[in-house]
Amino acid sequence: MDHVARLRALRRKMSEQKVEAMLITALPDVRYLCGFTGSNAALVVTGRRATLYTDGRYTTQAKEETSGARVVIAAKSALKEACTALGKLGVSHAFFDPSSTTVAQLAVMKKEVRGGFFVPAKRALVGELRERKDTAEIALMERAAQLGCDVFDKLLPKIESGVSEMEIAAELEYLARKMGAEAMSFETIVASGSRSALPHGRATEQKLPANGFITLDFGVILNGYCSDMTRTVHLGEVSRAEREAYDAVLEAQQAGVSAVKPGATCDEVDEAARSVLKAAGLAKFFTHSTGHGVGLEIHETPRLAQGQRQVLEPGMVVTIEPGIYIAGRYGIRIEDMVLVTEDGGRILTPASKALIEL
Amino acid sequence: MDHVARLRALRRKMSEQKVEAMLITALPDVRYLCGFTGSNAALVVTGRRATLYTDGRYTTQAKEETSGARVVIAAKSALKEACTALGKLGVSHAFFDPSSTTVAQLAVMKKEVRGGFFVPAKRALVGELRERKDTAEIALMERAAQLGCDVFDKLLPKIESGVSEMEIAAELEYLARKMGAEAMSFETIVASGSRSALPHGRATEQKLPANGFITLDFGVILNGYCSDMTRTVHLGEVSRAEREAYDAVLEAQQAGVSAVKPGATCDEVDEAARSVLKAAGLAKFFTHSTGHGVGLEIHETPRLAQGQRQVLEPGMVVTIEPGIYIAGRYGIRIEDMVLVTEDGGRILTPASKALIEL
Repeated sequence: MDHVARLRALRRKMSEQKVEAMLITALPDVRYLCGFTGSNAALVVTGRRATLYTDGRYTTQAKEETSGARVVIAAKSALKEACTALGKLGVSHAFFDPSSTTVAQLAVMKKEVRGGFFVPAKRALVGELRERKDTAEIALMERAAQLGCDVFDKLLPKIESGVSEMEIAAELEYLARKMGAEAMSFETIVASGSRSALPHGRATEQKLPANGFITLDFGVILNGYCSDMTRTVHLGEVSRAEREAYDAVLEAQQAGVSAVKPGATCDEVDEAARSVLKAAGLAKFFTHSTGHGVGLEIHETPRLAQGQRQVLEPGMVVTIEPGIYIAGRYGIRIEDMVLVTEDGGRILTPASKALIEL
Repeated sequence: MDHVARLRALRRKMSEQKVEAMLITALPDVRYLCGFTGSNAALVVTGRRATLYTDGRYTTQAKEETSGARVVIAAKSALKEACTALGKLGVSHAFFDPSSTTVAQLAVMKKEVRGGFFVPAKRALVGELRERKDTAEIALMERAAQLGCDVFDKLLPKIESGVSEMEIAAELEYLARKMGAEAMSFETIVASGSRSALPHGRATEQKLPANGFITLDFGVILNGYCSDMTRTVHLGEVSRAEREAYDAVLEAQQAGVSAVKPGATCDEVDEAARSVLKAAGLAKFFTHSTGHGVGLEIHETPRLAQGQRQVLEPGMVVTIEPGIYIAGRYGIRIEDMVLVTEDGGRILTPASKALIEL
């Protein structure tokens, strides 16, 4: 990863916004900018310097991983030492990210440097950089997305009535690990039968039914980058109503994917998917937004939701995942990762979306 | 879980501290108090009422899981609606937890209710309750800890030279899932050969060496409760220096465990372990604290570290995990979970700590 280029891009933004210094403590932002993956870090960036503060657990790892920034092992608190050093740099202020900084951390920061020095950033400058993936990131995310699909293919023969949701999750995660995933992007969702009507139904001891939908929502991590995909399959004979509902969700999902292109706004993409479900009389069962950015974190900006006027740009990777949830009966969700290209969108998760009957 | 009793205990603390209302947004705190496990929640607690705010993704789940609190599905933001409702309750203030509330969240809160209404709590009232586990929690944590040990036993035959750290992690997590774990407590650490000198060495593609230490640090989750254990095993013949180092860490760990009892301070327990390594001339390689509380989260209070004067109380569950890390050579860490009983400490992770040579 070209951390030096990323720090350069951040400095360009800082200069445009007249930001003299930044204190960065969100771990994915730190990793993005200098490569360090430890659990305790404070990165100070000015127009000329970048210094990473961490603690003694990470002495060796920080040296191995970090590029573009000097490493300081703090004797006590990495955050405090970063602030003390910031206070001595001769800058008039430092921006911090209010959405990843706690009120308690800010109190510590304010103790180290006089009042007014720390300014909550109105824009997430690092988050904005992270939205548009660079070539190395796209290559990794393609691999992660493909790995997710390969895992899904190998999992299919194991999905049968009587096996528990937890066992399916165990098989899925084992396959993922064996096939090279360093971890899962989030807690694997296996929701079967009437539980598929829970949009975030974690795997439970419940056995897969003889007849019904099973929603699988999962992702793998490769070198820190997350994949995310959902497929809903069916055990036993599909009723006419179930098939119609599935077809409506699939049509909505495809409409969402087709709407992805540079210049489209996030709410236009959301509306492209939502309007299909409206026409089918199913909009009231679509209780969440259409998608989200993905990268070093499973949920990143942009948000593909109603009222979101942000414009899609080439290099963004977003999910398109409409779903319907009919309480006590069933749920259906279909999700792809889509890369915004120069002239449209390209699906990174090529697994078939035709209704699979097992 | 007896949520009503927990809310009652919280109200007792609130009354003692003259706290009229609390806004609770840390998800483990919400789960602890009312059972809800969704990813978006704001719980309002006053002397008489408790109301959980979440969003439309969780309509069914919130009703199924929550007890002791009324459920409100917010049309837009759960946090905003909770604040608006708080502002109309006729209370003069509401406490919030500054260590889990971001600066951005506080800005949203302050928009909804006039300035000065929200007070950062000096003490983590819910966190304090969570420190002392109740009977149901202890039973669950004993099961989780035992499950971790059972997984370790079954994993041992698979640890051999030439297998990658990632494959070991995959086998370990698969066993855990198959044996009933709902998830892992944290990213499994498998650090072999010179990588064992990284205290937080995640599993990599590196193959296990013909001769060297392998540190395994992992935990399983049962009904939300985490286990945590570390064992360091050895492949090939152990050198005299390695054995001496292992024995010193084991002695330090046992000294730490023996120091656990009601009335002991956290730094006394830390010092009990640390002084053994000092005597062996190894203290400079012990670069972290001796342990931490564990429960719904993998890291909870109390912290067993130098300068921590907090007193251990019956019902607390803490880890005792001294280690040494000699850069470029090897590392050794041994960790148990220990329950503070009425008259001492009881190890919850009974796996043998004798040096295992494979």
